[in-house]
Amino acid sequence: MTRSTADALLAGNRLTLAGYEAKHFGWSVTSKVATITLNRPERKNPLTFESYAELRDLFRDLAYATDVKAVVLHGAGENFCSGGDVHDIIAPLIDLPMPELLLFTRMTGDLVKAMRHCPQPIIAAVDGVCAGAGAILAMASDLRLGTARSKLAFLFTRVGLAGCDMGACAMLPRIIGQGRAAELLFTGRSASGDEAHAWGFYNRLCDPAALIEEAHKLAADLASGPTFAHGMTKKMLHQEWSMSIDEAIESEAQAQAICMGTRDFERAYDAFAAKTRPVFEGD
Amino acid sequence: MTRSTADALLAGNRLTLAGYEAKHFGWSVTSKVATITLNRPERKNPLTFESYAELRDLFRDLAYATDVKAVVLHGAGENFCSGGDVHDIIAPLIDLPMPELLLFTRMTGDLVKAMRHCPQPIIAAVDGVCAGAGAILAMASDLRLGTARSKLAFLFTRVGLAGCDMGACAMLPRIIGQGRAAELLFTGRSASGDEAHAWGFYNRLCDPAALIEEAHKLAADLASGPTFAHGMTKKMLHQEWSMSIDEAIESEAQAQAICMGTRDFERAYDAFAAKTRPVFEGD
Amino acid sequence: MTRSTADALLAGNRLTLAGYEAKHFGWSVTSKVATITLNRPERKNPLTFESYAELRDLFRDLAYATDVKAVVLHGAGENFCSGGDVHDIIAPLIDLPMPELLLFTRMTGDLVKAMRHCPQPIIAAVDGVCAGAGAILAMASDLRLGTARSKLAFLFTRVGLAGCDMGACAMLPRIIGQGRAAELLFTGRSASGDEAHAWGFYNRLCDPAALIEEAHKLAADLASGPTFAHGMTKKMLHQEWSMSIDEAIESEAQAQAICMGTRDFERAYDAFAAKTRPVFEGD
Repeated sequence: MTRSTADALLAGNRLTLAGYEAKHFGWSVTSKVATITLNRPERKNPLTFESYAELRDLFRDLAYATDVKAVVLHGAGENFCSGGDVHDIIAPLIDLPMPELLLFTRMTGDLVKAMRHCPQPIIAAVDGVCAGAGAILAMASDLRLGTARSKLAFLFTRVGLAGCDMGACAMLPRIIGQGRAAELLFTGRSASGDEAHAWGFYNRLCDPAALIEEAHKLAADLASGPTFAHGMTKKMLHQEWSMSIDEAIESEAQAQAICMGTRDFERAYDAFAAKTRPVFEGD
Repeated sequence: MTRSTADALLAGNRLTLAGYEAKHFGWSVTSKVATITLNRPERKNPLTFESYAELRDLFRDLAYATDVKAVVLHGAGENFCSGGDVHDIIAPLIDLPMPELLLFTRMTGDLVKAMRHCPQPIIAAVDGVCAGAGAILAMASDLRLGTARSKLAFLFTRVGLAGCDMGACAMLPRIIGQGRAAELLFTGRSASGDEAHAWGFYNRLCDPAALIEEAHKLAADLASGPTFAHGMTKKMLHQEWSMSIDEAIESEAQAQAICMGTRDFERAYDAFAAKTRPVFEGD
Repeated sequence: MTRSTADALLAGNRLTLAGYEAKHFGWSVTSKVATITLNRPERKNPLTFESYAELRDLFRDLAYATDVKAVVLHGAGENFCSGGDVHDIIAPLIDLPMPELLLFTRMTGDLVKAMRHCPQPIIAAVDGVCAGAGAILAMASDLRLGTARSKLAFLFTRVGLAGCDMGACAMLPRIIGQGRAAELLFTGRSASGDEAHAWGFYNRLCDPAALIEEAHKLAADLASGPTFAHGMTKKMLHQEWSMSIDEAIESEAQAQAICMGTRDFERAYDAFAAKTRPVFEGD
């Protein structure tokens, strides 16, 4: 491959997103940390057809972003997200024919897939209401900070639907255990912040006033780390989901050997030898 | 398909079980909630060849029952179930040739499969002794209510057998975690009610005097919900067990699209629009 | 098969390891319990290329050992293991070409595979530092006893590497939950003894002075149990990792039927009938 061919490869797989102008939610990038703000606080930040599609497309683009190394996802005001808007989403769904229903459920599923496939760790900062599809977005993130007053509810059963939405029957049991997940999905009941923390849904509880700051601090720590390796950690957490242990071990032998070929691995050793702190650059 | 062909389809897949007369345990149906009572309290409700086979057949029939929407499983007296009876089961097994041993272990496994394949949520109400195959029946249920004095023990090792019985090495780790499951299965030690609750085996602990009432209340809540959707939730919790995340998300897109085609989904929206409470009918 | 052919089969699959003279760690066998002591306490018991390879070979041999029925793994002094030695391992890795990097990561992965494939339950006794590859060795054990002062850290990210090392992205989530595992693997932060116990990493916490004694007591209990059946429990916990529930149930029907054909099963029943305590012999 000549250098100019390589440049073409890189150009086709590199995007900068700092200047992206989001239409249906807030978006900003500071020091390689992107913040997505669900911002219709007067209705507790519901999702709409438009915001689903834009989130899906944005998370797909993040796979190629060179200027974003971690993502914080939160809601404006004192709530995270109330899920799919009853007026904007549920009402029109009632009358759709089956192929279009599937178009909708695949779009929401594709958002979760895109969140799991982008290399950046996603940190959900959850205060107040975290319900329905909002609970799914928190679940589909990599790390979750909550508040004691947050209320987590997989509400689907309350609107006559099943708990199997956007991967919940696969992912929630592995986060909080099969029995607890079954209860939340069958009954739609709320879990308090304390419960969700004790069960491992939240990594920790924060004071509401400090929540977004703590999320940004955690994101900044990750963004200043060996981000190529972080992307590999995320990929393997995804990839090994249904592998046998032996297959997973071979896959990790390959993945870690790749990481041992990075400059960040060398930088860490050089810093150790020089008794300084490594400065990682993500390559 | 003509209407009469459809009627034949429905007739071949619909059973009413309210009038079923169980031989080896108690059975009753009230308001679409069935109660199975293991009822040899003087011996702590052990299982026998006959009760295993009848439970297996009954749970298979439940897949077609139109008049049962949730199941409560409990034991008479102050114990849940002491497992396979030493005299009635272990003694005869000692002398069986291999094909008949396999006939037995497949029968007990088929009971668990039938519990996982029927669409009704099964709620185990566990007091006192919950041991061996009894612990498996609780584990194979969807939700579990316990008491502080309950004792959960996977006793197989005590009778010279392995912990891999009726799916325990697959299911128990996903409910309480791999390390805790390994300890219970290798050592056969009892877990107290508090431990089993903290680990996520029980959804909550109840006062022994209120246990069966709370189980019935939970079952009644589920039975009055969107039961077709509940059956889909249960199916997908089963089906996605060893799928990749991406496969699970596509499966849920299909499953939820089916649920969006039900009348219960429309009923929920109509009730919301009319500011009333939805009355679900399970279709 | 004639008797002499059978003898050849047995001879080719039976080893005694009590007299094994380990070069790179401590090794002793008492009453069928083997103890492996990582013994460079002045450096917190790091691993080297040589100790990795010897541990891998020893755990492979344990699959055929007739005189070892349980294994205790611990560190000399007040620490478990600090992981791969920076000087002896990380420094030389920096300059290796890719095929040799893979040779290294496959060697470490093969150690974990060998730990999962030998039939003996492995009990990690963890005090003090339990970091990097040391944390992996604890994770890859069957049971874990810890101390309040122990510090568990999957440090890979600190040296510029990914959390996907030796099976961590597959195994750690199933022990402590997906969200907690993601945090430890992305951030490399230490978990305290209390945290790791609450999350199910440790089966219990011990007083540091009593730790090794408690580990030996637990190992002795297991070694005096039905050890053929224990080996089957361990095999099925491994084997069913990525099976469907239905496949797992059939696999357990076969595995348990095999165990019902053992003399230990008969011994347990005979002891029960005679109102004595069974003496298991592992066959």
